[in-house]
Amino acid sequence: MGTTEALATFITDFDGAKIPEPVRAIAVRGFVNWAGCALGGARHPALLNAMSALRPFVGAPQASVIGRNERVDALNAALFNGISSHVLDFDDTHMATLVHPSGPVLSALLALAEYHPIDGNTFVEAIVFGIEVECRIALGVCPAHYDIGWHVTGTVGGFGAAAAVGRALKLNTQQMTWALGIAATQAAGLREVFGTMCKSLHPGRAAQSGLSAALMAQTGFTSSMRAIEAPRGFAHVLSTEQHFEKMTDSLGTVWHTLENSFKPYACGLVIHPIIDGCLTLRQQHQFDPADVTQIDLKVHPLVLELTGKSAPTTGLEGKFSVQHSAAIVTHEGKSQARQYSDAAVQNPDVTALRKKVQIEIEPGLRVDEAKVTVSLRDGRTLHHHVAHALGSIERPMNDQQVDAKFMDLASTVMTREQATQALAACRAVGQTHDAGAVGRALSV
Amino acid sequence: MGTTEALATFITDFDGAKIPEPVRAIAVRGFVNWAGCALGGARHPALLNAMSALRPFVGAPQASVIGRNERVDALNAALFNGISSHVLDFDDTHMATLVHPSGPVLSALLALAEYHPIDGNTFVEAIVFGIEVECRIALGVCPAHYDIGWHVTGTVGGFGAAAAVGRALKLNTQQMTWALGIAATQAAGLREVFGTMCKSLHPGRAAQSGLSAALMAQTGFTSSMRAIEAPRGFAHVLSTEQHFEKMTDSLGTVWHTLENSFKPYACGLVIHPIIDGCLTLRQQHQFDPADVTQIDLKVHPLVLELTGKSAPTTGLEGKFSVQHSAAIVTHEGKSQARQYSDAAVQNPDVTALRKKVQIEIEPGLRVDEAKVTVSLRDGRTLHHHVAHALGSIERPMNDQQVDAKFMDLASTVMTREQATQALAACRAVGQTHDAGAVGRALSV
Repeated sequence: MGTTEALATFITDFDGAKIPEPVRAIAVRGFVNWAGCALGGARHPALLNAMSALRPFVGAPQASVIGRNERVDALNAALFNGISSHVLDFDDTHMATLVHPSGPVLSALLALAEYHPIDGNTFVEAIVFGIEVECRIALGVCPAHYDIGWHVTGTVGGFGAAAAVGRALKLNTQQMTWALGIAATQAAGLREVFGTMCKSLHPGRAAQSGLSAALMAQTGFTSSMRAIEAPRGFAHVLSTEQHFEKMTDSLGTVWHTLENSFKPYACGLVIHPIIDGCLTLRQQHQFDPADVTQIDLKVHPLVLELTGKSAPTTGLEGKFSVQHSAAIVTHEGKSQARQYSDAAVQNPDVTALRKKVQIEIEPGLRVDEAKVTVSLRDGRTLHHHVAHALGSIERPMNDQQVDAKFMDLASTVMTREQATQALAACRAVGQTHDAGAVGRALSV
Repeated sequence: MGTTEALATFITDFDGAKIPEPVRAIAVRGFVNWAGCALGGARHPALLNAMSALRPFVGAPQASVIGRNERVDALNAALFNGISSHVLDFDDTHMATLVHPSGPVLSALLALAEYHPIDGNTFVEAIVFGIEVECRIALGVCPAHYDIGWHVTGTVGGFGAAAAVGRALKLNTQQMTWALGIAATQAAGLREVFGTMCKSLHPGRAAQSGLSAALMAQTGFTSSMRAIEAPRGFAHVLSTEQHFEKMTDSLGTVWHTLENSFKPYACGLVIHPIIDGCLTLRQQHQFDPADVTQIDLKVHPLVLELTGKSAPTTGLEGKFSVQHSAAIVTHEGKSQARQYSDAAVQNPDVTALRKKVQIEIEPGLRVDEAKVTVSLRDGRTLHHHVAHALGSIERPMNDQQVDAKFMDLASTVMTREQATQALAACRAVGQTHDAGAVGRALSV
């Protein structure tokens, strides 16, 4: 049996009751994280422009646009929620491949669930199959696939969405194989468009392509049975390396879904250990930021290479400035979306603090490790060594931390009461008889 | 100025009045050919399955599904008409790149025209810009791009559709550059799915992506300004060869649109000279097919390699069988869509004639050249040498031949009177004040 059929067989035939509890738990945690990101992105110009352009063409009000009051057809809901959930660069990451797995999978699956009722247990299992297949296909072509210039979230996202939806629709194996093939032949997304609105279009379009792929396969729309592994199939055409064994080895016993990670801070990942250190010192010592005379950072070389932007002027630049990040978290004790607004980056108190940041590369430090020293006017010097940043595999965010992130993001578009109810609905999705109701709880 | 901006500037700024008359003429001929193919494909299972899957999600009835009585939103009309116009493998071909240019361009443009009125002159000029840009981008990455496994119609089709729609919408150069970038990052389509319904999905999806790209760019949805030529842009990521000069040299003076060609027969291109020869002998000598004792063919090696299928059992196999093609055209004096039905391939008289076909490779013959000898019961042997097949660049189909092809394809879904009116509407598109009205003439 070829790779495509083997994956399809896993999706259609594996007994969902055998999914281990920690795998289910991370799927639900990922759902909360994804929903929070989509709420936080609900007023972003990328989403507003896409909706403005496509609104004349949307169909019946079947599914929610998260964080908004519009309802649109399920295929456009998948597109729009895929955009909003990625546009803040705050969604989940499968570190081994750099896939952001939930955007394509959940944007497709929740839109389907609002249109075609799905019970919560099926919904959670479908998330697992979607993310597992997505990460495995990525593992089979990365890192070469990403290095060539493919935004892997765009390219493998359609497989994940098709897998999740196909599982939820109870496709047979023939249909599921076609669905993966229909997704394969729509795989797209170039890294060249990073820094533009098109980056967030990738998970949106992948969600839409994967959802329609599963629906089309269900009607008998045919595709190749070997779309992933054939000489002119996905893996050979879009990568210079192919590890088909990584796609299918230990299916159902090893769960790559467990390696999915969540970002605690709304900025570049390499900055996270520095933020951790600054935050810890501020919380432990409760000093006044006005008393800080110097912030010394010892870091991995990638920190300066990717984020050594000493004088950012916009929120987007601030997300990739270690100097701004150290200053703002020292100043405000937080590093969420609001701390990367244009206003936050231009705040004179923060700008003054930013100039007190000194950075030194220390050989031997890991990329998720940092040493932070804060010097105060009264002569004290406070030290903290972060061995692993929060959000890394070694020190993952727990449910409480993801919930707090959700609440912060949700506060940009809903009241605290609404946000509390929406969070409770997401958390309880596995126990509901109608997962689509969660989509409605995420509307405003 | 980079390649992407140079192409965008050409699309937005070139004076349409300077498009030479033969370029306009081939654009209109291509429109007639495309519309005929879409009419002929209007009842194909690929289209029926796609419509069945997606019908619940379509929006307002803005545009026609050609050859049918449904109206759907413009984006889904672009998708559906892209599928039907390619599903018979009977649409146009830019031989140097193997792009089928009209499917993506016209499926997007006509759908737009039904939603957003466009005068006929603007419509014809928009076709020219769409096809010209599509062929030029393909020339810049082919043949390597195709050899790797990309279905070039799927990948460059989105640029063509975005160019045509962007010209019709009068985008400014900034918006047009973004539109090409939005199309670039959605470029997709694998040759592995040839022989399945997914092949015709490619021009459909390209039409839809290109149409939405232009509409999104119009609202300010941003993309890279160098999406084609950048190191992680379209040309480097999707090809191992890049000839940027072929994309932009002599813009507005050399028109690759003139190299677009149309197929007279509903089968693989390499079979065309053989059909020409058989048809000529039958027309010149008016023999009874029952009197044929042998059909001898001298052919280029590719004919046997690609189409040496001596015992086809389905219509689709028949399209790639030189034996069936020689037999059916000798038997029926035609080689249109009906001659490649399952029934035609299984007809006992045709099967008997097929067994009388003898094929010999003759070194030195061109791929569009063939020698045909028909032996009759009365002892006569009739010879014909085809130097260039009808439909080749050297011997293109003229308007009358394309019109006859249209009428034959249209007859599968409409009365002769309706077809005559629809053809007249297509032919007169350049003179109408509302090009969208032609879409309605192509409905049934």
